[in-house]
Amino acid sequence: MAGNTFGNYFKITTWGESHGEALGVVVDGVPAGLALCEEAIQAFLDRRKPGQSRFSTPRRESDSVRILSGVFEGKSTGTPVSLLVPNTSQRSADYSEIASYYRPGHADYTFDAKYGFRDYRGGGRSSGRETIGRVAGGAVASLFLKELGIRILAYTKSIGPVSIDPQNFREDAILSNPVCMPDPDAAARAEQYLEECMQNRDSAGGVIECLADGVPAGLGEPVFDKLDARLAQAVMSIGAVKAVEIGDGCAAGSSRGSENNDPFCIRHGRIEKKSNHSGGILGGISDGSRILLRAHVKPTPSIFREQETVNRDKEEITVQIKGRHDPVIVPRAVVVVESMTALVLADALLSHMGSRMDHILRFYQREGND
Amino acid sequence: MAGNTFGNYFKITTWGESHGEALGVVVDGVPAGLALCEEAIQAFLDRRKPGQSRFSTPRRESDSVRILSGVFEGKSTGTPVSLLVPNTSQRSADYSEIASYYRPGHADYTFDAKYGFRDYRGGGRSSGRETIGRVAGGAVASLFLKELGIRILAYTKSIGPVSIDPQNFREDAILSNPVCMPDPDAAARAEQYLEECMQNRDSAGGVIECLADGVPAGLGEPVFDKLDARLAQAVMSIGAVKAVEIGDGCAAGSSRGSENNDPFCIRHGRIEKKSNHSGGILGGISDGSRILLRAHVKPTPSIFREQETVNRDKEEITVQIKGRHDPVIVPRAVVVVESMTALVLADALLSHMGSRMDHILRFYQREGND
Amino acid sequence: MAGNTFGNYFKITTWGESHGEALGVVVDGVPAGLALCEEAIQAFLDRRKPGQSRFSTPRRESDSVRILSGVFEGKSTGTPVSLLVPNTSQRSADYSEIASYYRPGHADYTFDAKYGFRDYRGGGRSSGRETIGRVAGGAVASLFLKELGIRILAYTKSIGPVSIDPQNFREDAILSNPVCMPDPDAAARAEQYLEECMQNRDSAGGVIECLADGVPAGLGEPVFDKLDARLAQAVMSIGAVKAVEIGDGCAAGSSRGSENNDPFCIRHGRIEKKSNHSGGILGGISDGSRILLRAHVKPTPSIFREQETVNRDKEEITVQIKGRHDPVIVPRAVVVVESMTALVLADALLSHMGSRMDHILRFYQREGND
Amino acid sequence: MAGNTFGNYFKITTWGESHGEALGVVVDGVPAGLALCEEAIQAFLDRRKPGQSRFSTPRRESDSVRILSGVFEGKSTGTPVSLLVPNTSQRSADYSEIASYYRPGHADYTFDAKYGFRDYRGGGRSSGRETIGRVAGGAVASLFLKELGIRILAYTKSIGPVSIDPQNFREDAILSNPVCMPDPDAAARAEQYLEECMQNRDSAGGVIECLADGVPAGLGEPVFDKLDARLAQAVMSIGAVKAVEIGDGCAAGSSRGSENNDPFCIRHGRIEKKSNHSGGILGGISDGSRILLRAHVKPTPSIFREQETVNRDKEEITVQIKGRHDPVIVPRAVVVVESMTALVLADALLSHMGSRMDHILRFYQREGND
Repeated sequence: MAGNTFGNYFKITTWGESHGEALGVVVDGVPAGLALCEEAIQAFLDRRKPGQSRFSTPRRESDSVRILSGVFEGKSTGTPVSLLVPNTSQRSADYSEIASYYRPGHADYTFDAKYGFRDYRGGGRSSGRETIGRVAGGAVASLFLKELGIRILAYTKSIGPVSIDPQNFREDAILSNPVCMPDPDAAARAEQYLEECMQNRDSAGGVIECLADGVPAGLGEPVFDKLDARLAQAVMSIGAVKAVEIGDGCAAGSSRGSENNDPFCIRHGRIEKKSNHSGGILGGISDGSRILLRAHVKPTPSIFREQETVNRDKEEITVQIKGRHDPVIVPRAVVVVESMTALVLADALLSHMGSRMDHILRFYQREGND
Repeated sequence: MAGNTFGNYFKITTWGESHGEALGVVVDGVPAGLALCEEAIQAFLDRRKPGQSRFSTPRRESDSVRILSGVFEGKSTGTPVSLLVPNTSQRSADYSEIASYYRPGHADYTFDAKYGFRDYRGGGRSSGRETIGRVAGGAVASLFLKELGIRILAYTKSIGPVSIDPQNFREDAILSNPVCMPDPDAAARAEQYLEECMQNRDSAGGVIECLADGVPAGLGEPVFDKLDARLAQAVMSIGAVKAVEIGDGCAAGSSRGSENNDPFCIRHGRIEKKSNHSGGILGGISDGSRILLRAHVKPTPSIFREQETVNRDKEEITVQIKGRHDPVIVPRAVVVVESMTALVLADALLSHMGSRMDHILRFYQREGND
Repeated sequence: MAGNTFGNYFKITTWGESHGEALGVVVDGVPAGLALCEEAIQAFLDRRKPGQSRFSTPRRESDSVRILSGVFEGKSTGTPVSLLVPNTSQRSADYSEIASYYRPGHADYTFDAKYGFRDYRGGGRSSGRETIGRVAGGAVASLFLKELGIRILAYTKSIGPVSIDPQNFREDAILSNPVCMPDPDAAARAEQYLEECMQNRDSAGGVIECLADGVPAGLGEPVFDKLDARLAQAVMSIGAVKAVEIGDGCAAGSSRGSENNDPFCIRHGRIEKKSNHSGGILGGISDGSRILLRAHVKPTPSIFREQETVNRDKEEITVQIKGRHDPVIVPRAVVVVESMTALVLADALLSHMGSRMDHILRFYQREGND
Repeated sequence: MAGNTFGNYFKITTWGESHGEALGVVVDGVPAGLALCEEAIQAFLDRRKPGQSRFSTPRRESDSVRILSGVFEGKSTGTPVSLLVPNTSQRSADYSEIASYYRPGHADYTFDAKYGFRDYRGGGRSSGRETIGRVAGGAVASLFLKELGIRILAYTKSIGPVSIDPQNFREDAILSNPVCMPDPDAAARAEQYLEECMQNRDSAGGVIECLADGVPAGLGEPVFDKLDARLAQAVMSIGAVKAVEIGDGCAAGSSRGSENNDPFCIRHGRIEKKSNHSGGILGGISDGSRILLRAHVKPTPSIFREQETVNRDKEEITVQIKGRHDPVIVPRAVVVVESMTALVLADALLSHMGSRMDHILRFYQREGND
């Protein structure tokens, strides 16, 4: 059991289920002296909040965060930061029917197999609402990293067959379209594709890309806690993610060494790389270049078609799912991928540089100007 | 630091570097009463041993394993199993030249950035020889799983542009060709491709696929220690792996819910699935189907061409690497992927079923016949 | 940093400070199917609640617990149980004066040295109110253990020079006197001693004893996670505890082997021991006898006398502490010791028996009737 | 299971049993650049080596350590340091008789209860030889701490009824008498007491005291990983230790606040304490004073008298133990207590200051001269 804690030095413990009273996270290991307020954290949560577009579940939740501990006079104290987000729109009745059967593509059957007991209300702990804790914790990590000049940016790279054109990359577009694509043209086509999916009572998958700039060389722990290994765990642990790539990722498997190796060079007196096939990680340790990863997200399993399945009495049945569900998970998962990336980086930073904010800043500045 | 321990219940700690005296692993958490001998473990190590084909480094190592503890009268005692493999063919002289510069695609620079200190002999701890500890530990895990009827099978799915044809799958071929492909025709073409790479002083990447049959439903810990998340960490932690897929993996991102959902059905009185797009894992918990994952491996960074790089004095230079290197990592990494998969499954099993062999067996049989 | 999580399988993460909004605990790893309600947990919290006698701080707190997650239809679901206790009587003003100096015997100076930042309101996270999370989590552990027939009992063994007489042991007395002693005569003398301390503006220490009955043989992990080692960490981690004894404890150091060894015998067909100098643990593993430990608690450092100390400007000063403080920590810490003991045992049980309630019960019954 | 790993940042994993081929330890997290050689580690192991006096088992072992990894050109590389000590004098035949029964005071019964399987040769993993891994790992930790000016000193405080006189403390005496007492007069009396015990076929217990000087203020993690809590776990995990005290320890329980509080003062411009009842730890965090702890060790359970016990067939029997056993564990355990203390301090240091030797040194010097 257990499994609801992530990280060793910058450590989050999340709790809460879809239809309980609230969800939350305890963030342990935040260096003392970091400026923290509810507004800054709320900005992250608002990016995953439901009901913001026609591609998002109509469930109405304000997802308002409260800081319950660990902050004194606007700064972290070094002790656990407890964040709480109340559930306000639980309509458990919607789910009473599914108590008896297992929805295809969902965790209903496996939770039952694991626990011999099932909270059938909206998937309980396997609901997408579980990610509230990740995003709230990731917000704190992001604010910490920002203090050090590390910036993480995630966006939708593709939905179904529609991909962004890197030549058309406009960062400011990400937050201004409902699919979180940095390419407005692609976004328009993706929206159209999603409309079709909805008309067909179907759902779509997609790809999320995440970049981290300003990460110093030297983060990550060989052998098993390599930076890419931890990122892989962190991102794969997000529900619906089925593949994780670092740098060239899958493409590396079909390339040649002469193509894949990144030559080192000197720029402005610093060691850099001429290309970045590695995605900023060599031998499991950050190499000072941009860190780049991709998460492949499966289509929402809740579709409003008739589906074959079985019930707890081991009878084959056909079912039609009701309730409130997004036709695509990707746009709302963008900030979740960003959060998990931030958590991994914050953890690796503390491991390398210790736990005192002043020392980290000094260390960081020195290395940064090296 | 640290980072050389993997697993919580079935836990390995590996040690040793390319040119030290020996490498090894301490396997902690092996249930008492498991039959263990050096021959059985050696069989796994022999699959990653160098010098077995023309695509493998000519370094000669017998890689003979010794059991130093934890086994009494042929059975595990429940206490740590310490396994040691001596290095016999360290030729450090080969590496003296590279002490001053950073090889592209290698961990030379990042280790230096991390530790401020570098063991330049053959990559030290970032060498492929590090995987000896993984394979020896994975062998113990595999033997444990085999006792429960769980069987893991890994093989090369592709090398460079050459992929196996699933219609032509012959399991017995895996160990009989130097590229570990289950398709003899594809194997022949892959060998030819590798010959070309070598003639061009270049190297190739590829894809490894791994299957696990007989895994009971219910393994894995939500939220962060999902079975697929742990597999992702485990497999991504293998040097040179740049992407990990579970089930349909990347393809899930471009499919629709109606395609991707696996309908449940009843077969022989048991709950099964009509398809397996999920790769045997739903909501991070095993669903009783075959577990399927893929690792994408980058081409060997050591190529015998002239390459641009920098040295420790921050000068741009061109270098030509010498030494003994495989033109492709994939075939020897097959058993490493298999080992990491076994370690994750063994760990999840103990977490679920406790640490007593007799109870696990009883539990397992009961559930298995459920 | 971090350090606010305890346990591996049955795992608590506590948060909250003396003068924040609330305190709480996330209990992860609770087996699914355990009956849980707020009333049952509240009963434990009420035993450490302030203001229940003249020896307890007059701070008024109802310390009412709310279950925010992990329970569905009155039973644990296997997912994290989040428990929250609001602070209602924070009077931060009382503490404004101490912001500038370090109280002797308190953690003011060391927190400042560690974090470079200090929450001076009532000790912040180093306040005795931190134990609310321990007791709430320990309540869940105790309820789980009770289901298996394991019963934990703690009480005050001595306060200052006044010790209980084992011949006069009356369990029902523990909860009926303000010092939690099982010997009413000793309790009366202890009360008198505390009155004297208070008149002298001084404070008292004491000893807490804790028993656990019904623990099966075989719990605990050699070598470093021995059951007694984990108990020692758990109990020593309670603020003000300065020594931990198992079984004969300190007395073992001056005894002889012929006195200290417990002969095994057969009783009712089971292996038992004729004596219990070991305190129920041999080689770090439970031996099936009663587990017995003692915690030695220092006197409350907050005394209302003039004391010498220094301030943040490194000036020597004399101070007189104000605020609301218990003249003795021991009676309210009794349930804390009990809680930490329960948490260690629950953790060891899950490690040994796996995470499924039904399997644990079956295992337990079988062994119990062995 | 598991349980053979200790520490998070400076982490040891020990392995090996009394009558196996070898014992050893993997030390992970050693900062790169630390001077390490076999001779320096051997000096620690020699202090626990058997056969050095008439109070020590006549088993002859050279206990020679070999460094197998993690050291390059005389310095640690940052990767795991694997240390191995061969067993050379295993006489398993001595133990064949005890295979069928449970020795009083030993772990025979509890290991059987835990594992359902027993390595009866000399106690297997529960033998005192298990401490070889602790001492070898502790030696590395001590050498690291020494580099920072932290010095740990342990010695025998009492054996049976004979205690040292603090007025007669002579540090140089510790290594020059067979009982490791810093008071030669007490040592002579202790030797006499042990002679009597041996004549009576009995054994003795005692107390070990350990001091750590030069520890900076600020080490330790609230709430559960307090420095004293980790020390308590570390020391209690040593076989035969039944109580652990920090500072005044048990005496604190009967003292008053006015006696127990240590007033702060300024000395040479630094914050210090006028007394040290706290033993150098306040609120679980080091306060910059000397750290002081005591371990109470039970008498050797192997005594050469007839004892009552039971066998695996659940029959009551009388037995007379043979083999090679120390009449007192204390003198050889002194270096073990010292080692565990060093490991806890090294772990806390890295947690606080990060993993780079150069940064730790800089941090340390700055704070040290604060």
